[in-house]
Amino acid sequence: MQLRIPGPTPCPPEVLKVVGRQMIDHRGKEFGEIITRITANLKALFQTKNDVFILSGSGTGGLESAVVNMLSPGDKVLSVAIGVFGERFAEIARTYGANVIPLNFEYGKAADPDEIRKALKADPEIKAVLVTHNETSTGVTNDMVAISKAVKEFDKLILVDSISGLGSLDLPVDKLGLDVVIAGSQKGWMVPPGLAFVSVSENAWKAHAAAKLPRFYWDYSRAKKSLADAQTPWTPVVSVFFGLDVATKAMMDEGLAGIVQRHVKIADFTRKEVKARGLTLFADEKHASNVVTAIKADEKLSVSKLRQVLRDEYQVVIAGGQGKLKGKVFRIGHLGWVSEQDIKEVLQALDKALPKARE
Amino acid sequence: MQLRIPGPTPCPPEVLKVVGRQMIDHRGKEFGEIITRITANLKALFQTKNDVFILSGSGTGGLESAVVNMLSPGDKVLSVAIGVFGERFAEIARTYGANVIPLNFEYGKAADPDEIRKALKADPEIKAVLVTHNETSTGVTNDMVAISKAVKEFDKLILVDSISGLGSLDLPVDKLGLDVVIAGSQKGWMVPPGLAFVSVSENAWKAHAAAKLPRFYWDYSRAKKSLADAQTPWTPVVSVFFGLDVATKAMMDEGLAGIVQRHVKIADFTRKEVKARGLTLFADEKHASNVVTAIKADEKLSVSKLRQVLRDEYQVVIAGGQGKLKGKVFRIGHLGWVSEQDIKEVLQALDKALPKARE
Repeated sequence: MQLRIPGPTPCPPEVLKVVGRQMIDHRGKEFGEIITRITANLKALFQTKNDVFILSGSGTGGLESAVVNMLSPGDKVLSVAIGVFGERFAEIARTYGANVIPLNFEYGKAADPDEIRKALKADPEIKAVLVTHNETSTGVTNDMVAISKAVKEFDKLILVDSISGLGSLDLPVDKLGLDVVIAGSQKGWMVPPGLAFVSVSENAWKAHAAAKLPRFYWDYSRAKKSLADAQTPWTPVVSVFFGLDVATKAMMDEGLAGIVQRHVKIADFTRKEVKARGLTLFADEKHASNVVTAIKADEKLSVSKLRQVLRDEYQVVIAGGQGKLKGKVFRIGHLGWVSEQDIKEVLQALDKALPKARE
Repeated sequence: MQLRIPGPTPCPPEVLKVVGRQMIDHRGKEFGEIITRITANLKALFQTKNDVFILSGSGTGGLESAVVNMLSPGDKVLSVAIGVFGERFAEIARTYGANVIPLNFEYGKAADPDEIRKALKADPEIKAVLVTHNETSTGVTNDMVAISKAVKEFDKLILVDSISGLGSLDLPVDKLGLDVVIAGSQKGWMVPPGLAFVSVSENAWKAHAAAKLPRFYWDYSRAKKSLADAQTPWTPVVSVFFGLDVATKAMMDEGLAGIVQRHVKIADFTRKEVKARGLTLFADEKHASNVVTAIKADEKLSVSKLRQVLRDEYQVVIAGGQGKLKGKVFRIGHLGWVSEQDIKEVLQALDKALPKARE
């Protein structure tokens, strides 16, 4: 089976082996050492000296944690959205009573930093900016260097959804001054879903101290207090921690530059091969994501049929479109544990399946 | 290693084998079938026709979900607490702005249904009652038949923390009219931590429709909508679902009566053996829990030293006391995948370790 959706991603055998390990005491010495090791590795891979916490929940839980830890009801936030997940981040903030100013860009395009500047200039009351690093639904990666620069000119808090970015793409959290950054275990980290990782800057802690939204499960203060004892406040997803210990060790051995370069290479290969087949990339190629490639479905193509044929006849699983892109695009994930050979197999299956999925 | 804390509990090899399975598409056909199968089994084991949802998070996340889905700020709730976890449930409700009327009972004792009646009579504005089925910190199981009867006399919503109860103890959710009941995967279910299960009654849905607390990640409406498509709203802890599929199948094969009886038997054995050693049970024996036994530490015993000797010299892991019981009790978990032989080994180690942990 070729599982090539943008998460969950396949896990290497050495990861799966420990995911299936017997339980241990989650408040005992060995598990404390695992937490400490993983946290140190995550900090290195986040390129940060900020606090980093491992929360038991999905990436969406991580987004919710950023909202409830940083904001008060009525706070004005600028939501920079370029797809489904950017809109979800905004929806969470709105649900919790934030006053969300939407700055939505056309699907397939990256956010324009100058538009962010304009929006921040137009409304000095904006307290924080929500932004997606890598938008999985459209296969677009935002230019976080330019965006963070724009936000920092106005001295605003910047909360970054990098659920599908970190672990695969370069995101120097401290250098860019990113205040809260959220990642998810089932992406480039090569472990199963179940954990969200968040980094919290000094400025973010100041905002946290003033933020009035109620929080308990996702509370960063509780996470910090427990981490001082090498624990988590609530019983963690022990199995995924086991996997993450092995996976982050392998990632540290490979090195961040190697990881990033590997994703660049395989994404370039994917895009080149897709275009060589006369297919059209959905994303503006200047900002095409190195973790997932979205491909336009022409009018005669049934995406659901394509996915079904690929799965049932060729054991290849790719993603369809989400939200208003349903039926309009299909997506190939190429993040984490993936080789050029894997993508070749996907493309060969695609060659055979495409004619069967056209009217 | 004998891991005998009240969760995480050891998992059978056939469960661990599938916990370490390769990832699949969490929105695909096979995973949908897994969700559907597990949900049906959970309903049978909850003895309910109510909706049952599987949330990705710890038991505490499940408690938080009950609060944010059922209450509005300022709602009066009666908190019936007999230990640390009952107090936690109350703290969550308080954090989210509920007006919590505490009804705390002495640690080691069960809740008195007549006191609940009195409290409900004294304050007709109370909307909901929070109660712990099995209090892990003290090793006490509340009489849910009597308690639910008292609450229903006043027609109040009853939200039940059965995180450590369900899966091991008899709790006929529908027969007792329990509105929201929360369970946790790492207890009698014999799978790793990472999932909370919640049942939601018709009355609870009515309360949910009127409840004004903001919610997103834990929102039962979103869970219900996704479950109609055999999905979860957010990426679930796939590995633990794999394990739960196998474990609940085994539980259904054993049958609820068999599971409950097995826990009765092993708990009786544990208590008898503990007392035969001249040790004192912490819990009122009429209400002693069948999943965990708390034992009083006499003044000369260092619980931390005892746990260390047991772990380092005898590969036995038991639990200490929590909150104000720290240093005052130690606890043996006997839930889920456990045999009399396991408990014998724990007791033999205890016999050797106790003298070494006394001053």
